[in-house]
Formats: sequence, C-alpha cells, structure tokens
Amino acid sequence: MPKKVDHEARRQEIAEALWRIAGTRGLDGASLRDVAAEAGISLGRLQHYFHSKDQLLLFALRHTNRLADQRIRERIEALTDEPSPRTVLRTCLSGMLPLDEQSRTGQLVAAAYFARAVHDENLRAEAEDGIPKLRAFLTDQLRRAAERGELSPDRATEDEAMLLISLVDGLSAYVLLDVQTGDEALRVLDLHLGRLFA
Amino acid sequence: MPKKVDHEARRQEIAEALWRIAGTRGLDGASLRDVAAEAGISLGRLQHYFHSKDQLLLFALRHTNRLADQRIRERIEALTDEPSPRTVLRTCLSGMLPLDEQSRTGQLVAAAYFARAVHDENLRAEAEDGIPKLRAFLTDQLRRAAERGELSPDRATEDEAMLLISLVDGLSAYVLLDVQTGDEALRVLDLHLGRLFA
Repeated sequence: MPKKVDHEARRQEIAEALWRIAGTRGLDGASLRDVAAEAGISLGRLQHYFHSKDQLLLFALRHTNRLADQRIRERIEALTDEPSPRTVLRTCLSGMLPLDEQSRTGQLVAAAYFARAVHDENLRAEAEDGIPKLRAFLTDQLRRAAERGELSPDRATEDEAMLLISLVDGLSAYVLLDVQTGDEALRVLDLHLGRLFA
Repeated sequence: MPKKVDHEARRQEIAEALWRIAGTRGLDGASLRDVAAEAGISLGRLQHYFHSKDQLLLFALRHTNRLADQRIRERIEALTDEPSPRTVLRTCLSGMLPLDEQSRTGQLVAAAYFARAVHDENLRAEAEDGIPKLRAFLTDQLRRAAERGELSPDRATEDEAMLLISLVDGLSAYVLLDVQTGDEALRVLDLHLGRLFA
C-alpha cells in the first residue's frame, strides 16, 4: 500500500524553506531550484506542488499570514476576559510590527511579495482581498470603542483604520531598513494610539 | 581628438532604462544584460559604468530621489511668497505619494530597492542616511508651525515626523498594490494633517 502523503504538510515545509531564504539572502533572484535545495528535495518534487515562483510565494505569504493571525489571536485571547477595543487594536497592530523573529520573517516574505505584486495583478489580488478584511476588523474595533464612549465617534471610520494599517506598514519597513529600532516603531504607534483615544 | 563623453548623462540614461523596466515588468530577476538591452547599449558598455545590479539600483534610486526632491522643491517655490509650514508639509508629503507617472516610477524603484536592501547593509546605508535628513526637515517645519502658534508645541517632535514619513510610505504601498486609489491615500493624509493642526 502506498504511503499516504500529507500534501498540505509538504507544501508548508517547502514554504518554510522559502522563508529561510527570505530571512537570509532574500528572494530576489532565488529560483525554484534554490528553494528545492533548501527544502532538501528535488526540483521535480517541488514542481509537483508549485509550478511557479509566484505560486509558491503566494502560498508562503498566505501561510505566514495565517500563522501571524493565529499568533495575534492567541495574544488577544490571553488578555483579560474582556479586553477593551483599544487593547485589541494595540495587540493586533503591534503584532504586525517586526519585533520578533517570526514576525520579522513574515515581513521579509511580505517585502518580496510587495516587490513582485506591484507588477502582477494575480499577486495583487491577495492584498486587494486581505487588506479590506483587516480594515473592516479594525473599523469594527474603533466602532466598539466609540460605543463604549472611549473614542470620539467621528474617528470610528474606515479611513482611520486605513491610516492605522498604513502607519504600521511604513513603521515596519523602516525597522527592516534599520532606520529605527522595533522599540522606536512601537513608541510611534503608541503615540498615535494615545492621540486617537485622547 | 576623441569625443568627450558626458559620463553623468550616460549613467542617467542607463538609470532611466532601469526605471522603464521597474515601471513595466519589475526588477526582480532583471539582469544587467536586460538593462543594457533596454538602454540600447552593450553589456560591456554598461559595465564600464556599473559593476553590479546593486550599484546600478543605488544610482537609479538616488537619481529618482534627486528628481523627486527637485520636483517637490519647485512645487513649494511655486506657492505664495511665504507658504505656511503646514502647506510646505502637505506639498512635500503629497509629492511622495504615487499620484502621477513620475512619482509612481520613483516608488517602483524604491520598492525594488526595499526588497534588496533588507538583505544588504550597503544598500540599507542609503535609507539610514536619507530618512533622518527627511525627518529633520519635517521636524523643522513642525517646529516652525509651533512657533507661529499653528501647532501644539508637544507635536513638534521627531516622532511625529517619523509618523508622517511612515504613514506616507504605507499609503504609497497600498496605492501600488491597488488596495486604494491615489485620491483615497491623499484623503487619509489630509485627515491626519487636519488632526495634527487642529
């Protein structure tokens, strides 16, 4: 009887090999052959799962985003029984900054995705789909805060949520570029949240 | 007598060939040979000016940044005799968003730079040097605004300037990813400036 192969686990192993390359020398110019070598499998075996670099990059990005979601959700669940919307927002947004190895790797994969997606509408579809969901989640937290009288109702908007996402994205980029430390990025985020909830 | 060659003009022509690739199919995987072909010169000729892709990318980035600086400075000079610090800030920050073809190309070159610089400390030095200068300029405008009583003095800080840079950077990324339009990005920037100067 042939051994049953867990295809999803195999795909994740390949994605993790791509992460390791993203975390060290970067994905620019990295070929499927390079990823196969890093994963310790043949190119043919890798191509059984992924036909192109973009297909693999997209899977690896979704996998890292799923893990990030899960990590942030666990942090929120570890808070007090009923965390305030402000605490949920801060946990979510600070969880997106590259403050530890896992989130740093996620940001490096996202940087590689960004550089390719600006030229590829299939890749862009991922952000076009994912960011509005994140924006809706943040807007919902802002509305909950306004209902509890913790936020001025005119700030519980989608634009304010987009501002938060963009701010965290830019702050992350400048941490990866060594322009600022993770702590400095967190301080600027807290500065903004403090003003938002003032 | 040999013809005198304007080496700087030649370098700029090569940089502009790189921009065209950045503006169409992207720089990931693009070789020096591809750039030479786009510039209509031989690879040997290109290598007379640039020995590596990173060297060329850095020159192209600096050249696009210089042109952007000049474009923004011209816009500021075209304002009334003495524009308010708030107007200078808005002109500068909105000039960084990819709202027209020139600034869009600049952002695409910057995206390619970003994806490589996160793995290369020589490339990172450019951002480590340039961003503090931009931050100092913005901080100076914030301080001028505070002196004129147009801004709360506790907001005339380097952190507030870093917040502005990060916000514009993130907003630009989501324009390039088609998550939002340039007008939407501008609206969020204006939302923040309106609150900053409230």
